[in-house]
Amino acid sequence: MADGDLRVGLIGFGNIGSGVVRTLAENRALIRSRLPRGVSVVRVADLDATTRRDAPYDPSIVTADAGAILDASDIDVVLELMGGVEPARSFAERAIRSGKHFVTANKAMLALHGPELRALAAEKGVAILFEAAVGGGIPIIRSLQQGLCANELTSIQGIINGTANYILTRMDQDGLAFDAALAEAQRLGYAEPDPTYDVEGHDTAHKIAILASLAFGMDIRFEHVWREGIRAIQPLDLKLARELGYAVKLLGIARREGGAGAAEVRVHPTLVPRESELAGVSGVFNAIQVVGRPIGRTVYVGRGAGADATSSAVVSDLMAIAAQGAGAAAGSGAFLAGIDGRLPVKPGERFLRPIEDLRTHYYLRFLLADRPGVVARLAQCLSDHGISIESMIQHRTDETDARATLTIVTHMAREGDVRTCLATLDALETTLAPTFVLRVEE
Amino acid sequence: MADGDLRVGLIGFGNIGSGVVRTLAENRALIRSRLPRGVSVVRVADLDATTRRDAPYDPSIVTADAGAILDASDIDVVLELMGGVEPARSFAERAIRSGKHFVTANKAMLALHGPELRALAAEKGVAILFEAAVGGGIPIIRSLQQGLCANELTSIQGIINGTANYILTRMDQDGLAFDAALAEAQRLGYAEPDPTYDVEGHDTAHKIAILASLAFGMDIRFEHVWREGIRAIQPLDLKLARELGYAVKLLGIARREGGAGAAEVRVHPTLVPRESELAGVSGVFNAIQVVGRPIGRTVYVGRGAGADATSSAVVSDLMAIAAQGAGAAAGSGAFLAGIDGRLPVKPGERFLRPIEDLRTHYYLRFLLADRPGVVARLAQCLSDHGISIESMIQHRTDETDARATLTIVTHMAREGDVRTCLATLDALETTLAPTFVLRVEE
Repeated sequence: MADGDLRVGLIGFGNIGSGVVRTLAENRALIRSRLPRGVSVVRVADLDATTRRDAPYDPSIVTADAGAILDASDIDVVLELMGGVEPARSFAERAIRSGKHFVTANKAMLALHGPELRALAAEKGVAILFEAAVGGGIPIIRSLQQGLCANELTSIQGIINGTANYILTRMDQDGLAFDAALAEAQRLGYAEPDPTYDVEGHDTAHKIAILASLAFGMDIRFEHVWREGIRAIQPLDLKLARELGYAVKLLGIARREGGAGAAEVRVHPTLVPRESELAGVSGVFNAIQVVGRPIGRTVYVGRGAGADATSSAVVSDLMAIAAQGAGAAAGSGAFLAGIDGRLPVKPGERFLRPIEDLRTHYYLRFLLADRPGVVARLAQCLSDHGISIESMIQHRTDETDARATLTIVTHMAREGDVRTCLATLDALETTLAPTFVLRVEE
Repeated sequence: MADGDLRVGLIGFGNIGSGVVRTLAENRALIRSRLPRGVSVVRVADLDATTRRDAPYDPSIVTADAGAILDASDIDVVLELMGGVEPARSFAERAIRSGKHFVTANKAMLALHGPELRALAAEKGVAILFEAAVGGGIPIIRSLQQGLCANELTSIQGIINGTANYILTRMDQDGLAFDAALAEAQRLGYAEPDPTYDVEGHDTAHKIAILASLAFGMDIRFEHVWREGIRAIQPLDLKLARELGYAVKLLGIARREGGAGAAEVRVHPTLVPRESELAGVSGVFNAIQVVGRPIGRTVYVGRGAGADATSSAVVSDLMAIAAQGAGAAAGSGAFLAGIDGRLPVKPGERFLRPIEDLRTHYYLRFLLADRPGVVARLAQCLSDHGISIESMIQHRTDETDARATLTIVTHMAREGDVRTCLATLDALETTLAPTFVLRVEE
């Protein structure tokens, strides 16, 4: 390193950490030319301090002791890339308390403890930056904090988990069953051996909680997010969705109409119109649609994971600190004021809309006895609950035993009404399986 | 205004200026909550100082004298929304010299004189911000300066003129001729009575010059941009492109492979793959694809014009200054260092690739005499110039006089070779009209 370089202590030397070290090396001259000073990783802590990583570094800077970074006086920025909630959260607190800037890609920690850490950083006059926590390299955090700061943001819809999107893309394109698509994703390294975190929507929920907090200036955390995964999706659903003009995507959705209203924050597989930008985003790409007043609709697309894309975001945070020091915090801090308590929203208040009060369109896939009167009774029940039909497809499932799959997309309806109606219909002997429900975003 | 508010002097009170005043009023509480102080327009200058605008303002603050803003001691930021090169450029210089921050949406002025103005602002320690100059509300300037700053940027492709995109979209969707689509755009207010600036690519060239300057850290100006408009496109080209799997878009393209290489900066109608994000962007929307190392491909979509989208960008600049003062300049200034002379590129040096050395794919639409041997001779000529055929469609144009339209998409070829070959072919008596050429981006 050169005199005056920003001195970075990296905790967590895995795939992403190695990518950051590579990017800093490969783009060194360019990064230097864009800044008043350089950026150097001067110490690295990882429980595995010996395995050689695929990156240019001096092995003598690697230690197994995180304290050698957290408590050091010759470190300006702690870069946390270990992941997980603890000990990452304790490390963050310790780094910030000792007056160090803090950069992280840790969405789980932020979705659970972000507001406290941001408040502590503001108190200590240091920056906490986390561009890499959502959307990989897509500069969505900065866009919400700065580029879109003049807007009342009303809606965010994001494909923000590449693993789930890869699986749904493969199920859609080649008719694979969920298990086969998952196995392929695991083989290619896109999915973990235990895929729960991705396919059950935990990861998406962490990320949408962070985005919703920033967009609405509310204290929205992981536990506030309604969450459903993609395990129950069948190839048949993707086929039917296609016939109806939709694609199925695992979306994180945050919506707040009218500045003082309740917010919705939810994660679930969702039908989106086939011609929409979100429908066109396939494989491991992420896309985030943000709607606001006055800007209208904007969309951001890029690789949502991987060492390359993620290191772009991490290094941009380090560069912001190298350029602006605590000003990097002042910049983002200012636009984050709402989160730190200025908006009249506190945890525990009823600021989230209960799922029963959600109003959207629904995809209902019924398995019915193919007998006279069955469809009429079904239509009557929907009508009795104020649910009207936008489109409908009927497929004879099995000629021999007279079962039919009937698929309906409803007009706007209230979720509580849909549930009540389905409880009635599913109790009928002519309804041969629990009705499968997906939500639709028009 | 409240004590301590950022005091804005607005020059140019047209459609965009009114939109900015509306946005500041409609989102006042929200903007205030995100900042340590408010933002107030305290004086407005326009040659028409009397016509009532559709925005909430005190008519007594409007004057016909720009000097009342430029030379005032009670103005912190000059917001220039008059457009055009002069007197906007002189006003910018005067404002900056007097120590005022400067915010503008004026792409023409920036594409011609941006580097001097930025250097002057850096010297005077004030911010010059211009998020609204490209892509309407899309935060593309901040993304290039900050979110993507860790990357070596290698390519930008932008649909950045909504008028041209609207015309091409209408020609594609309904088979309208150029003149009919233009007339419709004029009727709807999307195109000016004199549409030259939009349809001949001047506007796109201004914008891609600004983006290329930022992305590559080079002094690239309007006059460096190779430019072709969309007037010569026929509905037949859109139909043929569709058959070949493409859409036709007016793109601004900037490319630079390898950090030290020459750059290409060009504007022309371009075939893009139908399944690409850019192909899906229709009507008055803009889309900008940015490719870099290590981030890979990212895409940004939003409304590219109009008072609403543009005011989002303008107000975000004002808010950055309200939050950070000269720090807003320090932030962007740092990431712009390359432009201000650190990269070894100066105007007049041969840093742009001549169009003859461009290597890309070509769409060639021939009108040929439908006689034996004609296609063979054509194929031989292409082959002689190292141009190979990727796909081909032949349509009999007119049964009676034996003319045929032959359309070819080439593999990667050098433009100089294509031109030489076409000069030969177009001189043949069996070539019945000058061959129509479009470039293709794969």
